[in-house]
Amino acid sequence: MKFVIIGGDAAGMSAASKAKRNDPAIDVVVLERTNDVSYSACGMPYNIAEPDRDMDDLVVREADVFREKQGIDLRLGHRAERINRDHKTVSGRTVHGEPFELGYDKLLIATGARPRRLNIPGEDLPGVKVLRSLGDGRLIKQFLAGRHVERALIVGAGYIGLEMAEAFHERGVQVAISDIVPTLLPWLPSEMSEAVRKELIDKGVSLHLGTGISQIEEFGNRLRVRSDEASLDFDLVLLGVGVVPNSEIAAEAGLDLGPHNSIAVDTTLRTSDPDIFAAGDCADAFHAITGQRVWVPLALRANRGGWAVANIVTGRHVEVPGILGSAVFKVMDMEVAHAGLSLADASSAGFDVVDEIIISRSRAHGHPGNQNLYVHLVADKKSEKLLGGDMVGKEGAAHRIDALVVALHAGMTVAEFFQCDMAYAPPFSPVWDPMLTAANQLLKKM
Amino acid sequence: MKFVIIGGDAAGMSAASKAKRNDPAIDVVVLERTNDVSYSACGMPYNIAEPDRDMDDLVVREADVFREKQGIDLRLGHRAERINRDHKTVSGRTVHGEPFELGYDKLLIATGARPRRLNIPGEDLPGVKVLRSLGDGRLIKQFLAGRHVERALIVGAGYIGLEMAEAFHERGVQVAISDIVPTLLPWLPSEMSEAVRKELIDKGVSLHLGTGISQIEEFGNRLRVRSDEASLDFDLVLLGVGVVPNSEIAAEAGLDLGPHNSIAVDTTLRTSDPDIFAAGDCADAFHAITGQRVWVPLALRANRGGWAVANIVTGRHVEVPGILGSAVFKVMDMEVAHAGLSLADASSAGFDVVDEIIISRSRAHGHPGNQNLYVHLVADKKSEKLLGGDMVGKEGAAHRIDALVVALHAGMTVAEFFQCDMAYAPPFSPVWDPMLTAANQLLKKM
Repeated sequence: MKFVIIGGDAAGMSAASKAKRNDPAIDVVVLERTNDVSYSACGMPYNIAEPDRDMDDLVVREADVFREKQGIDLRLGHRAERINRDHKTVSGRTVHGEPFELGYDKLLIATGARPRRLNIPGEDLPGVKVLRSLGDGRLIKQFLAGRHVERALIVGAGYIGLEMAEAFHERGVQVAISDIVPTLLPWLPSEMSEAVRKELIDKGVSLHLGTGISQIEEFGNRLRVRSDEASLDFDLVLLGVGVVPNSEIAAEAGLDLGPHNSIAVDTTLRTSDPDIFAAGDCADAFHAITGQRVWVPLALRANRGGWAVANIVTGRHVEVPGILGSAVFKVMDMEVAHAGLSLADASSAGFDVVDEIIISRSRAHGHPGNQNLYVHLVADKKSEKLLGGDMVGKEGAAHRIDALVVALHAGMTVAEFFQCDMAYAPPFSPVWDPMLTAANQLLKKM
Repeated sequence: MKFVIIGGDAAGMSAASKAKRNDPAIDVVVLERTNDVSYSACGMPYNIAEPDRDMDDLVVREADVFREKQGIDLRLGHRAERINRDHKTVSGRTVHGEPFELGYDKLLIATGARPRRLNIPGEDLPGVKVLRSLGDGRLIKQFLAGRHVERALIVGAGYIGLEMAEAFHERGVQVAISDIVPTLLPWLPSEMSEAVRKELIDKGVSLHLGTGISQIEEFGNRLRVRSDEASLDFDLVLLGVGVVPNSEIAAEAGLDLGPHNSIAVDTTLRTSDPDIFAAGDCADAFHAITGQRVWVPLALRANRGGWAVANIVTGRHVEVPGILGSAVFKVMDMEVAHAGLSLADASSAGFDVVDEIIISRSRAHGHPGNQNLYVHLVADKKSEKLLGGDMVGKEGAAHRIDALVVALHAGMTVAEFFQCDMAYAPPFSPVWDPMLTAANQLLKKM
């Protein structure tokens, strides 16, 4: 059995390792176009924040370990370009321009996603960066080390942009963030979005929301960025305006596509060709609440997808039922967490939506170090079930969201969630956990 | 309608306030034997840790607020001594020795619990303390302020004893802990118990486990404590060997008792007399997994019980299905959390038990500040459902436990829990949350 994997990132290497652990006799080939495999991509902003840390600290396992200890045929610098489904082959070119072709019994497409481009003049200037691969991270770090970066512009106030704002801030760089959307984190209720905005302002970040960038040009040794409203000069510009799935190889092979041109897969990660799987940021998923196809490129799903494909390819029965778009990120000292459907998504999906926002505290009454904690819950009036929620605060948001995650997977009603016997101690929450308080308030509206 | 409440602590004052909010016309009388109501009892160790904080910071609402703003007839210094169910009256005596008697339509017994006594000579010496009421807390704080306390012995390594070890440590007191049980937190798996033990030792606490105290006597201006193995001298001795429910008034009225002589109640908090409710630390509850009566005196259940009784008395339909014994506490810099059945309890309850302990990390690979995080899950082989679990670590245990709490209430299988789409970011967890890793390992044993 020959199991070929295109892409040696989270989904690809998870699948390769797990397949070999399940069945050492299986022939596993990984084609990776770069020279990096198995690194913690999400850790890059935190690594960039610290000048003395080596970027390679983020490498979880070296290529040689995969080859020698695990017996994986890992081919770096190999770009797959074409899948021939009739002959069951993959062909492409190495970094040195040499063509290659190899056959497969089962194929996994784990090609990930790439940064979305703005398609404006100056986007490719040396001081304009993206952060996706370890190579991108190294370039940013080298740039910061090589010259005095006083001011940086981050285009795009998504979670990568916000995490990088913290990283630049830690490096003593004056940070500006622009986004074409006029509201910060528009899926959050306005009070919670405002709390995050205030945290950025308090840390000295300037925000240019509702502002599109039209051009970047060199100006002396800086970059002049033209927007709808002004021209401003920066030493570095980071583009973080989202990603697009690397699904062209699948599309050209005639495989079905899902939302945003991601590769459509079923709950066994199979594409429309039963011998070809797709997992990671290039593939879609089913939403656990709506059952609809969604494209939410996040790390756990990528790892889980790789894990599932390896199990299936080695003869075990596994399904991955659905995702909730659960996410957490840090914005300076603020934790922002989300799970399930936003109010707008829930309305669009046809639910009879009701929601509630409460401001509670992170610790018990009178306990030192208390912080505000916002909890937002969304529910369906008809079924009385929870649909989603958000949490924002300087402590206690990040791990609390998983209680809501479990409740959403379990299809709990608001009343059932309110009855949960949550753990309490003064350093960690009020007696009534903020989630319970929010559920109780929400119950009154149902 | 006259609603009389015996006890002005968590359950009693929750019920009084909520009843008045639901129905301002209801006549609510609270009989409280002390002069303190509505304070955060669980916050006392943290208050004692800081010499400059006033103990009254823990008071959530003053007695006058209950009387004037909420219209509650709050009678302090009133000790209820007898319930006459035929005449529907409560009688007792004030602190000044004056007898009183009053009629009720509905009665709530919220008398709480009191510290268990050791019944050894010297237990009542001035330097021997307990921590239950705000008055107890004030006495300890005055004692620490009034003389140089160099060494303290805590008898009982339960959560109050362990929280007070931290408080004394913060005050610069050399702490020893003794417990008759030879293992620290014996309901924890040994690796996790050992991690907590190490944290105490690292902070300079001396542990005398498997050691019973037989006598305390004055020796100069210190206390000499005799145990099975030695005589040691301390400036202060804190007894924290558990509590017993204040259920005598219910027993004498002929109401049914539950485990450990707590007052037996149904899911509407009714005792065996339908006009008499019991809530808080004096009352029992049903375990959400076994359905059996249990007595777990903890703060959330007390508040929830008071909330439920108020709703029922004011004509709303409410039930409180069951508890999980969920608990979290801090031991110096360590978070210890538990929910559901321990391995031993699950075996006793007749389940076909299987469990798994993993050591994961609190943050992503390569992220600074990473700490060990232990996760223990217990499940039933036959139904494949989760039964309980524990988490121990310097960060990330306290709030994570609530995800398990929700899973237990929902009756999730280990496989379903493993499929939960938990939130991930490098500062908060590995990509696979430690709970998911534990579930995956546990699945292999099922």
